[in-house]
Amino acid sequence: MKNIDGNLIFDHAPRIASYASAVGKKEGEGPLRDWFDRIIRDSYAGKDTFEQAESELMTTAVRIALNKGDYTQEDIDLACCGDLLNQCVASSFAMRSYAIPYAGVYGACSTMALSMILSATAIESGAARRAVCAASSHYCTAERQYRFPLEYGSQRPPTAQWTVTGSGACVLEERSRITPNTKTAAHQTTLERLDSDDSAFPKRDKRPHPIYLHSARLGRIIDFRITDQNNMGAAMAPAAADTIYRYLSASESEVQDYDMIFTGDLGRVGSRLLRDLLSEKGVELGEHHSDCGVMIFDEDQDVHAGGSGCGCCASVLCGYILDKMRDGTFRNILFVPTGALLSPTTVMQKQSIPSIAHLINIRTNA
Amino acid sequence: MKNIDGNLIFDHAPRIASYASAVGKKEGEGPLRDWFDRIIRDSYAGKDTFEQAESELMTTAVRIALNKGDYTQEDIDLACCGDLLNQCVASSFAMRSYAIPYAGVYGACSTMALSMILSATAIESGAARRAVCAASSHYCTAERQYRFPLEYGSQRPPTAQWTVTGSGACVLEERSRITPNTKTAAHQTTLERLDSDDSAFPKRDKRPHPIYLHSARLGRIIDFRITDQNNMGAAMAPAAADTIYRYLSASESEVQDYDMIFTGDLGRVGSRLLRDLLSEKGVELGEHHSDCGVMIFDEDQDVHAGGSGCGCCASVLCGYILDKMRDGTFRNILFVPTGALLSPTTVMQKQSIPSIAHLINIRTNA
Repeated sequence: MKNIDGNLIFDHAPRIASYASAVGKKEGEGPLRDWFDRIIRDSYAGKDTFEQAESELMTTAVRIALNKGDYTQEDIDLACCGDLLNQCVASSFAMRSYAIPYAGVYGACSTMALSMILSATAIESGAARRAVCAASSHYCTAERQYRFPLEYGSQRPPTAQWTVTGSGACVLEERSRITPNTKTAAHQTTLERLDSDDSAFPKRDKRPHPIYLHSARLGRIIDFRITDQNNMGAAMAPAAADTIYRYLSASESEVQDYDMIFTGDLGRVGSRLLRDLLSEKGVELGEHHSDCGVMIFDEDQDVHAGGSGCGCCASVLCGYILDKMRDGTFRNILFVPTGALLSPTTVMQKQSIPSIAHLINIRTNA
Repeated sequence: MKNIDGNLIFDHAPRIASYASAVGKKEGEGPLRDWFDRIIRDSYAGKDTFEQAESELMTTAVRIALNKGDYTQEDIDLACCGDLLNQCVASSFAMRSYAIPYAGVYGACSTMALSMILSATAIESGAARRAVCAASSHYCTAERQYRFPLEYGSQRPPTAQWTVTGSGACVLEERSRITPNTKTAAHQTTLERLDSDDSAFPKRDKRPHPIYLHSARLGRIIDFRITDQNNMGAAMAPAAADTIYRYLSASESEVQDYDMIFTGDLGRVGSRLLRDLLSEKGVELGEHHSDCGVMIFDEDQDVHAGGSGCGCCASVLCGYILDKMRDGTFRNILFVPTGALLSPTTVMQKQSIPSIAHLINIRTNA
């Protein structure tokens, strides 16, 4: 692969061989409900704690992604996963049931892109033939870790976002080993069903449309000195603007070259800021921008500025977006999750919120 | 590069172009004091909080490593860093002062090896020419996050380890760009000195001895159902045994082929367990094993089973070990940091401690 002014161009363009998403009840009632593989209506997912439930979401997404591709853990050389919990325990507890070499990553809500970029890099280098990437979040674990115990019933300001209960997982594979990626009824029936609604399984296009990573860009840490942890969108928008602007410049491409630029979870407030910041630099997003945090919930679902969390863009990517690439609706997109690299401790210590955005250009020949 | 039964063999063998370590007062009074670049005697490192002090340790280690190699941030394509703090804030706050594409990683105390392996992979793939890797920990941030506020003066059991206050950083570089790596007096004087004791600066060998990464192995998550968070050595030893055994098998090499196998921070208890576990498999470590957690403190420093924390093996590697490779004492070593992937929450929820160990074979032509 090549590094051109910070843009990473994949020579062998790793393909997304399979993918899956598992989400909670609220997400399963939202506008993207038909694209999730599994909707787990129980906040505990049958476990004893919310933290274990979050691990179960990731385990489920990974298991379905492996099943769809007809992979066993022996087929996978690398697992690259992350989440928001202290010490990233949702991921390590989820992945301890797999005997796969494991790399934990932390990029806050940008984690899914970080794990995909590092995995694709490992595939390009020859370190791995296939890698599984996953990220998760859970409303209940995030609330008690970052904010208040749920029982307080705290009031949230309009700029606040709602942490998505969900996980997305995908298998990246080197291009020389392309095999048809069809989801058969036989695979579906081997899956443990939990309490999901079967009607939530989308009918997938059976034609093999290779979806592949064309290029990517790892972001820099940007700190705009925002200190309001209830306005993460404002903290993260400058990072998204920086990464998108630099990617477009280095690739000599324009917004109009992409069917859509999907940011991670800027929400409504952050999305408006991103438009303004890019507009100041002469880049107009126009109709070519959507935000996973805005897409995943309806406005009447009482989530204020939209969804957030590692699981937000991960489940939207590994549900709606990639399905829409399989059916040819999108052929060339930018996936740009953003992360706010704060902790409750840094907030209490009155530190500002450093942020980051990583970008992946995903294409299909469909 | 090649993946042979999980062993990653580097084709271009990225070299360690420069490295540095910064530690606290207690570490600066230990047996490895002469090999650290900077000893910061103030627990706050001149900052307002312990967390900021930990970031300062990493910033210092990274800055010295860059200075030694005569690099500016424009020379570096990737920063791969991690620490133990919730949401890895020591790293993200340390690295926000650099405009370097940033990948946060989390492997608990195995973080230094994880960041070096992912960076080396990125270099092999062509994604980066040079990458900076760093990891840090701080006794005071770890105690209040994982255990009790320092003011409690809690009694610690004999199996407990002492979190190292320190950070190590190194610059990895593709082999085609080898330049002499000499530390000149001029570079030293450009460094901000803080309150360190100048006599702590070792006299470095000026001859350029390329130290390079020959191969590596990413570990799998191993859970031996240990639940005592005051006995991390026992929890991590099985992971170290697994990774070392599999590496030796896949490389068809023996313990005697290596000058030394340095584990990360098993401490005295975990080290004994590692010997036993490997001995059961017919692998005798004999005189070829040392543990960074045992090496960094004297027995009379009241640290019980030894040192721990991401900064333990990072500062020992980027001080004593690499210096001893530069002067030819060691020519072929295995660096095997271990990580306990727990969190205070999982401990309170009575979960066991999943662990992991990553391995790097570092060689020199000296």
